[in-house]
Amino acid sequence: MSGRLIGVGVGPGDPDLLTLKAVKAIAGADVVGYFAKAGNVSHARRIAQAHFPAHAIELPLNYPVTTEIHRHADAYRTAIGAFYDASAEVVAAHLIAGRTVAVLSEGDPLFYGSYMHLHVRLASRFPAQVIPGVTGMSGCWSQAGAPIAQGDDVLMVLPGTLDEAELSRRLREADAAVIMKVGRNLPKIRRALAAAGRLERALYVERGTMADCALVPLAERGEERAPYFSIVLVPGWEHAA
Amino acid sequence: MSGRLIGVGVGPGDPDLLTLKAVKAIAGADVVGYFAKAGNVSHARRIAQAHFPAHAIELPLNYPVTTEIHRHADAYRTAIGAFYDASAEVVAAHLIAGRTVAVLSEGDPLFYGSYMHLHVRLASRFPAQVIPGVTGMSGCWSQAGAPIAQGDDVLMVLPGTLDEAELSRRLREADAAVIMKVGRNLPKIRRALAAAGRLERALYVERGTMADCALVPLAERGEERAPYFSIVLVPGWEHAA
Repeated sequence: MSGRLIGVGVGPGDPDLLTLKAVKAIAGADVVGYFAKAGNVSHARRIAQAHFPAHAIELPLNYPVTTEIHRHADAYRTAIGAFYDASAEVVAAHLIAGRTVAVLSEGDPLFYGSYMHLHVRLASRFPAQVIPGVTGMSGCWSQAGAPIAQGDDVLMVLPGTLDEAELSRRLREADAAVIMKVGRNLPKIRRALAAAGRLERALYVERGTMADCALVPLAERGEERAPYFSIVLVPGWEHAA
Repeated sequence: MSGRLIGVGVGPGDPDLLTLKAVKAIAGADVVGYFAKAGNVSHARRIAQAHFPAHAIELPLNYPVTTEIHRHADAYRTAIGAFYDASAEVVAAHLIAGRTVAVLSEGDPLFYGSYMHLHVRLASRFPAQVIPGVTGMSGCWSQAGAPIAQGDDVLMVLPGTLDEAELSRRLREADAAVIMKVGRNLPKIRRALAAAGRLERALYVERGTMADCALVPLAERGEERAPYFSIVLVPGWEHAA
């Protein structure tokens, strides 16, 4: 009898935003896995830690150091693909041994999460289940009290890595938008929003749902580099009833 | 001392997908409100009912019957606006009396939810808080085990009410898409997906995360009208590492 793989969404940061289902899955796991950058704490681990069973085997999956390699280079794709292959085999060994493996994922596992790299490699070989979680973007707009979309609004989720003209064109076509991967892209994002006539509505949210959450209209924020846990929201619903 | 308004996301359907924070908010409320169509059960109530405090005041907010009126007509906007105004005043009376009012919302309160109509009317007058929830779309793609977006994918949330050419044009520009409000729009959505060359990837999900959930490739589904709780997913991440 092989074990079961469970991708567990742990939500945006506040440990109380774990679902009951996630808590049960973690508490019943033999192995708890999570991705992390080598030398950094795993945010997912910190969020869910209170529910780890006393005798669980912890399985940190540490990304290889690839800072020297451009992320669109073949060498990067090769290194990261090999890392996911190796991670999947480590997890598979536990599953073959009959252990239930819960792999934690910040936010929602299948929404821009690393867990999906294990899922596509293992779900055809082992019983697998995905427990959805509250996304980082939901955490942010809830913290901001900003209704994001209503009725027939078109909502776009855009990576801040798009080039400026493309970002601006997309923003003109969206009723509501969420811009992820802000970080060093903030000045470009601000210019694209201004060009699209949407800067006035844009909100900048740092660490939504965490204790030290910060929220300001983007137009009022300085140009200093944004941290990883930041997001820009352009609420839709401009014609509220 | 006035009471506190809490918009509570109860997730997509499975009662275990409530968050710990939602459970605490409901259990601590004096009044539990929820929107419903007159004569229908409230799905949000059904999801969260097990956590209602024994002496809570239940506050159903029943939509007016507007089936005779086209939803873009002025008469519809007037009727629905008056309903939200009246609902907000009923909630305000409880808040003025010092009661904590939890208003349940399927999925996430500020993502296409009715709660936001109360929030915009009351949050400047009373302390208000929003507890995010797992969205219906996360519930669906998790049930399907379908990674929806990764890396620099652009994800679009599109209403099935868009006209066919517009829907098709938008689908061509999206790496990943979620189409909501499927219902009677299913044949049109299928044609738009085919025209955009995305029909082969599309999944049809009915009642994601509920006990009677159904999932099929859209290309294999018949033309019978889809129920309210259905969604079409076009997973992105076509170039998986």
